[in-house]
This record gives sequence, C-alpha cells and structure tokens, in this order.
Amino acid sequence: MGVEMVDITGKKEVYREAEARGLIMLRPETIAAIKDGKIPKGDVITVAQLAAINAVKKTPDLILLAHQIAPITSIDVKLNIVEGGVEASVTVKAVAKTGVELEALVGVTTALLTVFDMCKQFEKDEHGQYPSTRIVDIKVVRKIKVEEEGSKKL
Amino acid sequence: MGVEMVDITGKKEVYREAEARGLIMLRPETIAAIKDGKIPKGDVITVAQLAAINAVKKTPDLILLAHQIAPITSIDVKLNIVEGGVEASVTVKAVAKTGVELEALVGVTTALLTVFDMCKQFEKDEHGQYPSTRIVDIKVVRKIKVEEEGSKKL
Amino acid sequence: MGVEMVDITGKKEVYREAEARGLIMLRPETIAAIKDGKIPKGDVITVAQLAAINAVKKTPDLILLAHQIAPITSIDVKLNIVEGGVEASVTVKAVAKTGVELEALVGVTTALLTVFDMCKQFEKDEHGQYPSTRIVDIKVVRKIKVEEEGSKKL
Amino acid sequence: MGVEMVDITGKKEVYREAEARGLIMLRPETIAAIKDGKIPKGDVITVAQLAAINAVKKTPDLILLAHQIAPITSIDVKLNIVEGGVEASVTVKAVAKTGVELEALVGVTTALLTVFDMCKQFEKDEHGQYPSTRIVDIKVVRKIKVEEEGSKKL
Amino acid sequence: MGVEMVDITGKKEVYREAEARGLIMLRPETIAAIKDGKIPKGDVITVAQLAAINAVKKTPDLILLAHQIAPITSIDVKLNIVEGGVEASVTVKAVAKTGVELEALVGVTTALLTVFDMCKQFEKDEHGQYPSTRIVDIKVVRKIKVEEEGSKKL
Amino acid sequence: MGVEMVDITGKKEVYREAEARGLIMLRPETIAAIKDGKIPKGDVITVAQLAAINAVKKTPDLILLAHQIAPITSIDVKLNIVEGGVEASVTVKAVAKTGVELEALVGVTTALLTVFDMCKQFEKDEHGQYPSTRIVDIKVVRKIKVEEEGSKKL
Repeated sequence: MGVEMVDITGKKEVYREAEARGLIMLRPETIAAIKDGKIPKGDVITVAQLAAINAVKKTPDLILLAHQIAPITSIDVKLNIVEGGVEASVTVKAVAKTGVELEALVGVTTALLTVFDMCKQFEKDEHGQYPSTRIVDIKVVRKIKVEEEGSKKL
Repeated sequence: MGVEMVDITGKKEVYREAEARGLIMLRPETIAAIKDGKIPKGDVITVAQLAAINAVKKTPDLILLAHQIAPITSIDVKLNIVEGGVEASVTVKAVAKTGVELEALVGVTTALLTVFDMCKQFEKDEHGQYPSTRIVDIKVVRKIKVEEEGSKKL
Repeated sequence: MGVEMVDITGKKEVYREAEARGLIMLRPETIAAIKDGKIPKGDVITVAQLAAINAVKKTPDLILLAHQIAPITSIDVKLNIVEGGVEASVTVKAVAKTGVELEALVGVTTALLTVFDMCKQFEKDEHGQYPSTRIVDIKVVRKIKVEEEGSKKL
Repeated sequence: MGVEMVDITGKKEVYREAEARGLIMLRPETIAAIKDGKIPKGDVITVAQLAAINAVKKTPDLILLAHQIAPITSIDVKLNIVEGGVEASVTVKAVAKTGVELEALVGVTTALLTVFDMCKQFEKDEHGQYPSTRIVDIKVVRKIKVEEEGSKKL
Repeated sequence: MGVEMVDITGKKEVYREAEARGLIMLRPETIAAIKDGKIPKGDVITVAQLAAINAVKKTPDLILLAHQIAPITSIDVKLNIVEGGVEASVTVKAVAKTGVELEALVGVTTALLTVFDMCKQFEKDEHGQYPSTRIVDIKVVRKIKVEEEGSKKL
Repeated sequence: MGVEMVDITGKKEVYREAEARGLIMLRPETIAAIKDGKIPKGDVITVAQLAAINAVKKTPDLILLAHQIAPITSIDVKLNIVEGGVEASVTVKAVAKTGVELEALVGVTTALLTVFDMCKQFEKDEHGQYPSTRIVDIKVVRKIKVEEEGSKKL
C-alpha cells in the first residue's frame, strides 16, 4: 500500500514532445461574443494561452507524483473557435528523462477552464446554472520520444 | 483591448457552494487494475482526491483572472469507478463575494488528470500512444448562492 | 537583531485602496512595434496586465514580511504608451487589516518587467546589451483607508 | 477509504493562537560560529526567522488536508542559542474557523531546517556525513481558542 | 554582514543521494487507530507520503538559500509504525551540482507534520492541548556523492 | 494575435550571466535609521537580499512567458547605502538555453520593494502618503553569454 513516484534516475535524457487537445462546448451567443471581441473580461484567446503556459510550468505542483521537467523548452498553445465551441491544443517539448504528456494535458485543461471563467456570464441560465457548458474530448494526440541523438529533429 | 478582473469590492459575502463533475474513459484492463489495487504507483482514488484538494486551493494561481477565495471551508472530492471509466465529483464551499464553480472545476480536472497520470502505463498502446484515453463531460452540476443570512443551510 | 512581522491582530478590517505607478523607457522603434502590434511574443499590454494581476496575488510570497491580504477584491492594471515609453498603473482594493500599497507596487514592477521581457529583442544593441532600457519613477500615488463603515465609497 | 478534508463551514470564526517549539542539536564549534557571526552564509537567526515566516504562510501548500487560514495576523519567530543547540519558537495568531497549530509547527521545522542548511558545512564529518546533527523535541506548547468576542485578549 | 547563496557554478554535476529519517511519538490509541484504518481524515501513510513528495519538490521555496535541484529523479518516502509512534524515511536522488540532504529533510518533516495533522484529534487532551505528541530524532542518515561517471550504481 | 513563448529547444546550453541594478530614493531620516539599525522590522539589507534570492527562483511564475532556468547556479545580491537611497545589484548565473537578465531584474525589483516595505513607516507623511519615495533607474548593466566551452571563466 502507499504511493510510489517512479524512479527515473537510470533513464536517459532524450528529446520529448507531446500534444494534447480538448474542447469546450459553448452557446452560439457566447461564441459570437468571443469572435466579436465582446467578452468584457478581455481577449479570451490570449488569456487562455497565457494561463495554459503558466499552468504547464506548474505541472509538478498539481500532479503530485509527477517529476519536475526542467527545463521545458517550448510550450505552444493554440485556441481555435470551432463549430459549437473552442478547441485547445497544447504542445510541450523538453529534453528529459520522462514524458511531457501530463504537462500538455494540464495546459489544455487550464486553457479550457480559462475560457469557461471568462465566458461564464454568457453561459449562465436564469437560475445561475450552466446547463449546457461542457468540456469534452481531452486526449493526448501525439507523444514523441527520440532515443537516438543523431536522429533528433529539433 | 486588455483584460479586466471583475471588481467585487461592493459585493456581499454570502454562502457559496458549487459542484463540478467529469469522467475519464479508461480501458477495461485499467479499470480492473484500479479495482484490484494493482496500479504500481498506488491507490488511484486517494491520490486523485488529494491532488484535487491541493489544486482547488491553488485556483487563483491557475485561472489568472480569478479572485482568491479565502477561506474555502470545505473541499469534498469523490471518485467513483463507473461503466467505462472513473467519475470525479468535487464540491467546494465558502463564504465569499464570488462563486466557487471554477474552484470545483479545477478540482475535477486535476483529479482526472491524476487518474490519467497514475494509469498511463496501462493505457499506452504498442507505439506508446493513448488511442482511447479520454476525459469527457466536465461540467458544473450545481451552483448555490444563499443571500439571506437566516436561510443558510450549513 | 532579527526580524519582525508586524502583529496586526488588534487592527480593524477597513476598506483599503492603493495605486502605484511606474514607467519603462524604450527605444522609439520598440514603441512603434508595440503600437503596430509587431512584437512577435504577442500583445504586450494584455500580457503585462495579466502578469501584474497574477503577481499582485503572490505578494506575500515575494515580500517576505508582508501579510496575506485576503481576499483582494479588485486589481486594476492599466498600461499606456506615453512619450518615451510605457507607463503602468495598478490599483488594488481590499477590506483588510493592513494596507495594499506593496501589492500595487508588485503589480507595477511585474507589469514593467513583462514589457521588458516581451520587447527585449528590440532593445538589444549589437553587443547584446540594453544600453538605454530603464524602469523609472515607481511610486505609490495614492493610499486610502476608510475607517468609518458609513463613509465607504465603493 | 479515501481522504477527507474536514468541513469547517459551520464553525465560528474565533481568535486562535498556537505556539510550537523545537530544537536542533549542533556541535560546540558550530554554536560558537553562530555566536561569533562566522557562518559564511550569513546571520543564521535572521535567515531562519524569515524562512519560518515565509513557510507558515505556505502551510496549506504543504499540509495537503489543511485549510487556508486567511489572514494570519501575526507570525512571531524566535531563535535562541541554548545548551547544545538552537531552539526555535513560533507563535501564530489568526481569527479563523480552525486552529493554527500546524502553521506554528511548519514554522518551527522550517526554522530548524534552515539552521541545518546554513551550518551544514560545520556539522559534516570527514566522510561528508552528519553523525551528530539532530532535530528534536518538536511540539505544540500552547493552543488558545477564544470563543467569546468580549474576552479576547489581543 | 548580509547573506550569501553558495556559488555552485563551477561544480560538476554528479550523482547525489541522501536519506533522512525522523519519528513522531503518538499515544497508543492513536497508533491503534492508524493501524485499524480508523483515522477519519483517511489513510495516514498515503497522505503523509504524498505530502512529503510534494514538499521535497518545493524545497527551494522553503529553504531560502537552497538551490533548485532539477530534476530530482527519485523521491522515495516510507512510513513505518514503530514502538511508540510512526517513523518516516525519505530518500532523494538527483544528478546535481549540490547535495540533496535538505530535500530529504524537508520530506521527513512534512511527512511527520502530516501525521500530526491527520491524528491531532486523537492526541488532544481535555484542554485541547497536545501534552505528549512529539516529533523527534530527525537526522540525515546517509549522504552519497558519486564523482566518477563509471562507478555510478544506479 | 495571441501570445508565443519562444521555442528554445534547438538552442545550446551555454554559460549565462546577467547583472541588473536599481535604486530606491529614501528620506535622509530613513537612511539614517537603516544605517543605525533602527528599523523595527529588522535588518533591511539582509531581508532584502533574501527576498531577492527567493524571487529570482520564482521568475517563471511571475514573467509569464519566461522559461524555467534550471538550475540557477548563483544568485548574488548586494545592497549599498548610497547618497539619497539604497542601491541594489543582483547577478545571476546559469548554464542555460536562454538568458538570465529577467531573473536579475526580478531580484532587483524585489530587493527594492522589500526596502520600501521595511521602511514605509519612516517614509509616510502626515496624510499617510509617500510623496518622495521612488524606485528609479532599474537596468541590466551586463549580460554575458559564453559560447565556447573552453573559454568559460567561472
């Protein structure tokens, strides 16, 4: 019983890359307000990108058994307005002893929760509830590990 | 242009409660391993609960335009093994000038990402990818605001 | 000998407000690039605002003898392009036992350092140095404490 | 199964105070070096005090099931050179729904670990080990809860 | 006067390992409750392990003159119920320019304080005091530095 | 539109060093009180040094688009009482893929804000305002990047 952090002491530092994605479903009025720049809290896309970058760096504070990945060399956050909502994609890169897919996932959830936070007044019904707002389909779409020094394509 | 944190100076401190939920879809073998206590990293449910409690307290560090809610008086995290995956439910309570639904949502996503982290070796395919692991249906299921001092049901 | 955190236990919680300001001097080409939205890292004003809001919340982590102010009810960050540079103004509000001027100052310095970070490639000379970039005139321009409940002007 | 944060929603905010103490046993040469101000890293007492104040504020980040106590109104850290070592005493005060003894304990352990860190080169033997350095007798020496508003002795 | 962080720029990155230990003395009834899984807050051992792992990663935030160790490659936390109390042992590993004994010590104190927090209702006397609860005998039991690349035994 | 963290994956890890400076202008009475050790909160120089060291390590939490620099191998903070105020100088060293001038700047502003915090009661006028306290002339005075392994002068 009890918990165990994986011992990665003996693993090699290799190039790592992971991309995660997810989607927040929003009301058409909310999507229109984002597009028209009418969300009073400000530019939803920029705030969500920054929140995601910030959160990725905090992954070992949140995922208690995660190792510190240091240094992360790239955090790329994209948000796209799609049919029915906003899609977030986060790609993280590092040369590290363990993968960075949790870092990418933390980025995606934080980006989508930031969209929720910024748009929540548009999503509330007359009872102050959020009957239709949903975050869905969060997944790791790509995980790369480049073992051979010579074959790294940075 | 620019961003704005909502000024809540003039709002009254009232009792607030919010519950958020979400689901992580896992392979049957992974669910069996959780049930049988065979996840090498340890007890998935307990670690996810603790990670969620910890993350809820950090909400203003993650959601950049969120206010500090202080003090949060209760964080209740439940994880249930359901058909096809694990469901997380987080309820947050506070007497505060603003709602606690983002706090509950941060708890849910962190609980589910912790499940992902602890089970990821069971979810990987032969290419090291996660073709079927999904986090879905994250939502605020209940938001309560009790304006009248006398009517608080604590 | 030694250090002392002020004991504020016996002080009353009153309405507090403080505004701090400061200026970063930049090259004309940099100012033009900000105005034209040509800084590759993104919208300087928005990022600086968010960084300031985030840092204000972290004041007790940075100013070691500062008390936690909780909850801060408003953080308003303005950045204006002025003759020769960018001016930051941060106003913080709270009902608290101690003042919020350090919180406002932390916001100003973080906003201006963020401008520095985002514009630094435009400020470097041919030797990779920053001969002319300066942050100047950081000050508390207004501090308010409203003792009487009835006279609060929120 | 699982973990539970105590729900303190229904508890009254009352005046709380707690004092914790502990001792680090050091070699006579180390104690002499502290007294004579010859520790190269600097003034041990001041650094330990500051580290303790800083750590007390971070208690809910460290003790995972602890509630945020906000605001803590006083953190008083004393370090005394005693026979055989250095004693730390930390007193924490707050008006809160739950006690502050863990906050005081976090302060004591952080103060003593800081003494360890600053003096460690004096404590090492020829094999780079610490055969005699010990932290001992950490305890809560006093816990106060003042229920009646009128009887508070601040 | 003043303080100094040691400049480790010129030091080599070598394999580092350190183990620290400590003990919390508890009442027999408390120890029985831990053994029987009757502590209402949950599984004491698992929570203490997780809290220790989390705190080890935060060492440079707590020990103000400590360097960041990045990445720590292993944090192994063991808690054993012994005669009279619970013993914690924390082993930390890293390839770094400086030792990891403070990291191990932060893990031990945090594990033991977490045990205190979870069991405190069982330790209180009728006056709400903790007359017998003690944390004792915290020490570094082993510190390893492997200079030669070839002789690393990972 | 949006923001971008620079992708430094392909950059080489080289020796980096940066020094930043700044000045806080204080009233003659305040400067005398610092010199005479009469600031009630304690030794201004030591507290400012520690606060700066602590803040430098937190740079990626504050400057949202900054990369983690890990490990920073030296943080040297000097404060000197000069004509009209206190000057802070912070030098940061690391072997890293990106420069450390923002780290040095964060150290300088935090040192100077700490001086402000500790001396503020001496700087207030009869209306509780700070008419003359100013932080000025914050700049990067030196940035070094040593590309060639052989030419490093550590």
